[in-house]
Amino acid sequence: PPVNTVTSRRSDWPPVAMSPLYLLAGALLPLTAARFTPDWASLDARPLPAWYDEAKLGIFIHWGVFAVPGFDSEWFWWHWQGQKPPDSRCVKYMADNYPAGFTYQEFAPQFRAQFFDPEEWADIFRASGAKYVVLTAKHHEGFTNWGSPRSWNWNSVDSGPHRDLVGDLGEAVRNRSLHYGLYNSLYEWFNPLYLADKKNGFKTQEFVMHKLLPELYNMVVRYRPEVIWSDGDWEAPDTYWNSTEFLAWLYNDSPVKDTIVTNDRWGAGCACKHGGYYNCEDKYTPGQLPKHKWEKCTSVDTFSWGYRRNMKVKELMPLHTIIQDLVHTVALGGNYLLNVGPTPDGMIPPVFEERLRSVGAWLDINGEAIYASKPWRVQMENSTVPVWYTSKGTSVYAIVTTKPSEATLKLLEPKTTAATKVTLLGHPNPLPWSPVTPSSGIIVLLPELPYTPGQAWTLKLDNIK
Amino acid sequence: PPVNTVTSRRSDWPPVAMSPLYLLAGALLPLTAARFTPDWASLDARPLPAWYDEAKLGIFIHWGVFAVPGFDSEWFWWHWQGQKPPDSRCVKYMADNYPAGFTYQEFAPQFRAQFFDPEEWADIFRASGAKYVVLTAKHHEGFTNWGSPRSWNWNSVDSGPHRDLVGDLGEAVRNRSLHYGLYNSLYEWFNPLYLADKKNGFKTQEFVMHKLLPELYNMVVRYRPEVIWSDGDWEAPDTYWNSTEFLAWLYNDSPVKDTIVTNDRWGAGCACKHGGYYNCEDKYTPGQLPKHKWEKCTSVDTFSWGYRRNMKVKELMPLHTIIQDLVHTVALGGNYLLNVGPTPDGMIPPVFEERLRSVGAWLDINGEAIYASKPWRVQMENSTVPVWYTSKGTSVYAIVTTKPSEATLKLLEPKTTAATKVTLLGHPNPLPWSPVTPSSGIIVLLPELPYTPGQAWTLKLDNIK
Amino acid sequence: PPVNTVTSRRSDWPPVAMSPLYLLAGALLPLTAARFTPDWASLDARPLPAWYDEAKLGIFIHWGVFAVPGFDSEWFWWHWQGQKPPDSRCVKYMADNYPAGFTYQEFAPQFRAQFFDPEEWADIFRASGAKYVVLTAKHHEGFTNWGSPRSWNWNSVDSGPHRDLVGDLGEAVRNRSLHYGLYNSLYEWFNPLYLADKKNGFKTQEFVMHKLLPELYNMVVRYRPEVIWSDGDWEAPDTYWNSTEFLAWLYNDSPVKDTIVTNDRWGAGCACKHGGYYNCEDKYTPGQLPKHKWEKCTSVDTFSWGYRRNMKVKELMPLHTIIQDLVHTVALGGNYLLNVGPTPDGMIPPVFEERLRSVGAWLDINGEAIYASKPWRVQMENSTVPVWYTSKGTSVYAIVTTKPSEATLKLLEPKTTAATKVTLLGHPNPLPWSPVTPSSGIIVLLPELPYTPGQAWTLKLDNIK
Amino acid sequence: PPVNTVTSRRSDWPPVAMSPLYLLAGALLPLTAARFTPDWASLDARPLPAWYDEAKLGIFIHWGVFAVPGFDSEWFWWHWQGQKPPDSRCVKYMADNYPAGFTYQEFAPQFRAQFFDPEEWADIFRASGAKYVVLTAKHHEGFTNWGSPRSWNWNSVDSGPHRDLVGDLGEAVRNRSLHYGLYNSLYEWFNPLYLADKKNGFKTQEFVMHKLLPELYNMVVRYRPEVIWSDGDWEAPDTYWNSTEFLAWLYNDSPVKDTIVTNDRWGAGCACKHGGYYNCEDKYTPGQLPKHKWEKCTSVDTFSWGYRRNMKVKELMPLHTIIQDLVHTVALGGNYLLNVGPTPDGMIPPVFEERLRSVGAWLDINGEAIYASKPWRVQMENSTVPVWYTSKGTSVYAIVTTKPSEATLKLLEPKTTAATKVTLLGHPNPLPWSPVTPSSGIIVLLPELPYTPGQAWTLKLDNIK
Repeated sequence: PPVNTVTSRRSDWPPVAMSPLYLLAGALLPLTAARFTPDWASLDARPLPAWYDEAKLGIFIHWGVFAVPGFDSEWFWWHWQGQKPPDSRCVKYMADNYPAGFTYQEFAPQFRAQFFDPEEWADIFRASGAKYVVLTAKHHEGFTNWGSPRSWNWNSVDSGPHRDLVGDLGEAVRNRSLHYGLYNSLYEWFNPLYLADKKNGFKTQEFVMHKLLPELYNMVVRYRPEVIWSDGDWEAPDTYWNSTEFLAWLYNDSPVKDTIVTNDRWGAGCACKHGGYYNCEDKYTPGQLPKHKWEKCTSVDTFSWGYRRNMKVKELMPLHTIIQDLVHTVALGGNYLLNVGPTPDGMIPPVFEERLRSVGAWLDINGEAIYASKPWRVQMENSTVPVWYTSKGTSVYAIVTTKPSEATLKLLEPKTTAATKVTLLGHPNPLPWSPVTPSSGIIVLLPELPYTPGQAWTLKLDNIK
Repeated sequence: PPVNTVTSRRSDWPPVAMSPLYLLAGALLPLTAARFTPDWASLDARPLPAWYDEAKLGIFIHWGVFAVPGFDSEWFWWHWQGQKPPDSRCVKYMADNYPAGFTYQEFAPQFRAQFFDPEEWADIFRASGAKYVVLTAKHHEGFTNWGSPRSWNWNSVDSGPHRDLVGDLGEAVRNRSLHYGLYNSLYEWFNPLYLADKKNGFKTQEFVMHKLLPELYNMVVRYRPEVIWSDGDWEAPDTYWNSTEFLAWLYNDSPVKDTIVTNDRWGAGCACKHGGYYNCEDKYTPGQLPKHKWEKCTSVDTFSWGYRRNMKVKELMPLHTIIQDLVHTVALGGNYLLNVGPTPDGMIPPVFEERLRSVGAWLDINGEAIYASKPWRVQMENSTVPVWYTSKGTSVYAIVTTKPSEATLKLLEPKTTAATKVTLLGHPNPLPWSPVTPSSGIIVLLPELPYTPGQAWTLKLDNIK
Repeated sequence: PPVNTVTSRRSDWPPVAMSPLYLLAGALLPLTAARFTPDWASLDARPLPAWYDEAKLGIFIHWGVFAVPGFDSEWFWWHWQGQKPPDSRCVKYMADNYPAGFTYQEFAPQFRAQFFDPEEWADIFRASGAKYVVLTAKHHEGFTNWGSPRSWNWNSVDSGPHRDLVGDLGEAVRNRSLHYGLYNSLYEWFNPLYLADKKNGFKTQEFVMHKLLPELYNMVVRYRPEVIWSDGDWEAPDTYWNSTEFLAWLYNDSPVKDTIVTNDRWGAGCACKHGGYYNCEDKYTPGQLPKHKWEKCTSVDTFSWGYRRNMKVKELMPLHTIIQDLVHTVALGGNYLLNVGPTPDGMIPPVFEERLRSVGAWLDINGEAIYASKPWRVQMENSTVPVWYTSKGTSVYAIVTTKPSEATLKLLEPKTTAATKVTLLGHPNPLPWSPVTPSSGIIVLLPELPYTPGQAWTLKLDNIK
Repeated sequence: PPVNTVTSRRSDWPPVAMSPLYLLAGALLPLTAARFTPDWASLDARPLPAWYDEAKLGIFIHWGVFAVPGFDSEWFWWHWQGQKPPDSRCVKYMADNYPAGFTYQEFAPQFRAQFFDPEEWADIFRASGAKYVVLTAKHHEGFTNWGSPRSWNWNSVDSGPHRDLVGDLGEAVRNRSLHYGLYNSLYEWFNPLYLADKKNGFKTQEFVMHKLLPELYNMVVRYRPEVIWSDGDWEAPDTYWNSTEFLAWLYNDSPVKDTIVTNDRWGAGCACKHGGYYNCEDKYTPGQLPKHKWEKCTSVDTFSWGYRRNMKVKELMPLHTIIQDLVHTVALGGNYLLNVGPTPDGMIPPVFEERLRSVGAWLDINGEAIYASKPWRVQMENSTVPVWYTSKGTSVYAIVTTKPSEATLKLLEPKTTAATKVTLLGHPNPLPWSPVTPSSGIIVLLPELPYTPGQAWTLKLDNIK
């Protein structure tokens, strides 16, 4: 039949096994182990590889052609030419600074990355205390940060940086024993194949079959990411994206099947419901302990994920806010993915570098309460000042993110025992304490709290209940 | 079956009928008229639409990103980064004038076409006496001169001119009753999909199925060209390109099925053997009357088809050479496709404009011997000076492209009759003549030959044999 | 005489009075007040306007075309094409990133300043606690940050920003009651007129007469700066620069004669010896109390005064170092001029903004010990931790820039009285103290030192000797 | 006295002799030969060096930054930002194609001249039959085509071509024994020094003293031109420009004093009245034989002297018009200076090259009637067809620029003698003739007139009166 001829003659879509025929026929093949089937029931049941929950902190990097205008946000193109509100600041910016008719594509040659040193980036990320790094391999603009054969002339090798950003950063990150993940936008705002499918009510899949999937499989095989941070899914159902087939391949047959984690953006309605861990929405903060592993992604620049040339300090998260946010997230069982947007020159802006290094300095002292921790039976209380709990083994960690105004701290939730021992992380000696009532609570006598860049301190409670 | 699903969900590949399944199944469908089958025996037997042989003169336009460097030729990219001879002048030119690492793709924003006025171009082409115009819709570089959905971000709408060059020129050309043709390169030097297929010995067809054919069908449906000037076929067999299937669709079902002509570049070994008219090789000049309709394509700039910023007069065809070439070609039954390379600014360089207008001035007088003519029983003789013959109805035209040094011209091939009448085109009165021998030949007494920009004159011989 | 004719026909050199003839003849004119004569004895004797010593903290801004390469430092041009060490990183940077033959002048169009908002800059400077702002009106590159008629086509109006940077910033700065100063380089590395004079052993003054002085007078009259921060003097004697004549005009007849201050870079051998306040060398730090008012200029970026695209946090002065440096400088009677380099886009990089705002936050509490202070009889002692003294009226301020490890601080130099009162700036209550010996010294009982971004605290000692 | 000090300390104004003092004192110095005084009576009396009148044909080259926009004309800057008519096409062109705020100065880096080969240019100019070449060393825009020290950062070495265009072309031109001249615009549209002088009613001379004259003297000494084609004089009197002083130096003391020629544009009211030869106005054509040597300057592109990217054939002078114009001009005693505008890439556009080579081909045959000729007693008559006369020694040349419709040509003005001999230049044999009446006129029997690119033929009449 002609179809076999076609599918057997592929070239850049390396895994033979994931041809459309296979995707349907896979379950029929003889298998040596239980395999995932391309449906949510099967896929959602996959256990999350352990490294991810232990990692707690990741660095998110939004880098692409959008760094060149460096204005508004990484959504510049859409705000300029997609959405086109009559009073768009992006429209005005282009009118003020570029020739009439200038296109977004023409920004690409100015994405030079001449100072991009992946070793230095990776040093900063390691110094931040993060355990994984997620780079935008391809954002909604469709520009791939590697030489994707399916994105000819719209990628970082053919135009701009003239190098394999995805590969080069990955090598440096892994050399420091950090996990490496890749962000991939399913949709591409202005890709004509996508727009045609959309116009057809997503009843056609030209974009998915000719662009998205070949590229995505290729990316996985080539770069072996341990996170696929999927995005841009919301306009179409997962059946359009062929998400379950892709994930089945990813979990069954891909070279990263044992360690890969993904998120929950695999089609309209999937967020907070299907996939690997849940991102739910950007900067999502649950009110109580979620039942499913989740991740909060947020950005140092509160206005943008991509680099903005005109960012000001008041628009950035102060260090203290970042530490608080990290603590709250981990207490509630989440991972924290903190974003920075590099410049088109290839630099992490120093103000971001400083934030990241300071987070690392805080974790140098307090990391014991974060990494590989589990939520405690209570996540938070607010007696003297707000206190957030984590736990690991027999230890419970009470983290205060506001400096108490008095020398004692009262915690109502812990139940002390005779063996209870309290220490302040970073402080040499155990702290005196007494129970609040015989059955519950503890009052700890605090030493002078050492200055710490994050303005948050951790009490380690051993042998409490 | 999944395959049907896929093929029925296409979006930008408008003619449903030409899906791969159809291409094989077509012959089985009930047809109201005889249809071409996708094999050379059937396709080669198609009669050439009549307009083409009558047209005789066409204008060829090589325009693309290559006009931006405007150096070496339209093969600049290949000579710079494909072939890479150690002493490549293109390598040197780039080293001397551009930053290290600059890519060909980065030339595109400078292809501005800010002065492109298709009305003016079409006026020039009409003034040249040409009856058809062939534009490079896509050259080997892959850049499409229209907003092809399969060439996103590498086309004239997304980058550079910001307009539909193919469509805009087509409208102007047709408004002047000229036929409009499109040049299309099958291969694309650096397209990764093509390179992968090539690496696979052309046993895969990723490039053909995902890029070439969807784009080509789309181009035909959208612009309805009357010539498809195919090129770039030579590295792979026609079976790789799916040429016979495409041509069968083109002749059976396309919107231009009744008027379309094509050439012979449809796969390795096809040239001079299969297809519509024959180009054989570039600037091909047969030694005697070919048996198959043919076309000589040649370029005013003898060094390049694309614009060169540094062209000099001595490298250009003088007008007289062009006229001679046209006459020889038509005498031997060919069409003459004369090329000019516009600037990246969108102008026909004045030296080209002048050549074209001068050809038109010569045709104003001598066109009767060219348009819709047929080769005569003898195509050329060389008694006094070289003389080339054409014919139309009962008239035979003897064209001299060298000014005779004497006042008489002897022709040995014509056989006179009592009714024989000789006139010089552009001259009011019949010319005196006498036979050379009673059975053959004629000696014509020439008037002072009027100055004509082409330095070629036509004797019209009526009632000769 | 012809000379008069020439000098009387000037156009852009507004103050008629400062023609060369005048400069010599001035002393002969009837004057209503004592006037300065163009010699160092007279000029050096001028009292420094009071505002300057009271101000203590200024912001220095190095902005120019050098921000475009943003590499190496504001000396990029010289390190690239002047000095040309064989292993110059600037030579390499240009070879790697720009076409052969690219000139420094061709950077100017990329100095866009599209985000330059002088109101925002001035807000930052005010928030830093600085009382004056000094902008490079013209650095050694010769590019003027205003539309200087003597620097046609090499200024910020004709190329790049297309606006009057000097004027626009000045207005915003003054609207916030800050003093506004201008940096002016006497020499221009590559100005052919200067180079010719230099080649002539500075026996000619083409550069000074046709370029430097007309421009400098024009600048003063047009922008009325209150500081002229002169630089680039060292290759030639002050007699070449006509420095004394200029200063005499500045002090006698200029529109800013009552408030202007200048530094000491007015010719080889002048530094630390002649002029207004002394800068001596860049980042100069005296070992003991100087006898002459001085200023320490230094830069947050320790590697450069101009913006560097590739700066890293470890290359920047930490906040604590800046505060220490400020305190040491003021204790020794100096002013502190802290430099930041804006981007070619027109932004103060956020890491600099953050430093400046943090300095301001420290001064909000501790400024009483800084502004309008005078050196005390002792400037520093080091009993418990290093302590720096300032004084104002009857108060003495002891500033500790290292956190004491104990709860008491011993000062040996103060002599207490019965009325002695000690307070910690920012702390509500007086602190307990006791004398070390009956005749001298004081031991202060410290409260918990509040966290302050600068990690420096001020004890105010009233009624001590 | 201080003034002497100043004037003796010049550096880049090499000829000491031409200091302002000298210019006035010159007449008092002991001289070995008669010297010109700086007044028109003396200067106008200088005989024109002989080479100039003999040369007859020169090539004019307008090259500068204006070639970069290549739109409208070399007056682009003025039409865009000086004159600013509300409907200016230049204003529209900039709005359509460049960012808001883009300045003319920012065009300079795109003036690349990467293909400029002075040897090839000079070959073309020699092939044209011209005997001198005049290049715009500096047009009204002020950009100097050499590294002028007084035009720092606004010259062809500092920006754009990065080479000495004036020097490089001069060397190539002289190597072919052609004379080399330089066009120099006195005024500079937007030079602030000039504008200030203008605002002052030209009562100040800042521009003249600090910019114009130092540069002009420097140019003469450095490049030794044999023509100074002065322009841009009309807004101010010659006394503002110091024209007579400059010319006196040029004729008395400059290194080209013996061979230099100049024109008549030395101040308002000078044209057609003072100076060397007269240009009067651009493209000036006198109605009868002028009494003073004159030159007609005209341009192949009838719309512009500088390169236009969008020129069309109908806007160019046809060859025949050029030849006619040349003949008429020489017949009336003028020189003919034919202009071409090179591209910013450094090429003579081929259509111009072709015109120039064709003029040369005509002169190869007819040059005898042109070079070193003198006007005849009658310059023109119109019996059969228009005939223009020149003479040399005993020969009179009758040049017909329209092909006679008959085989005879009647000339009424010549008076034949027994020894009269008539030949057609380029034709081997003498022509038969007869007198019209015994006392005057001649009827010549023409041969078939050979085709000549210029469509003009010369009859040489020997021994007539």
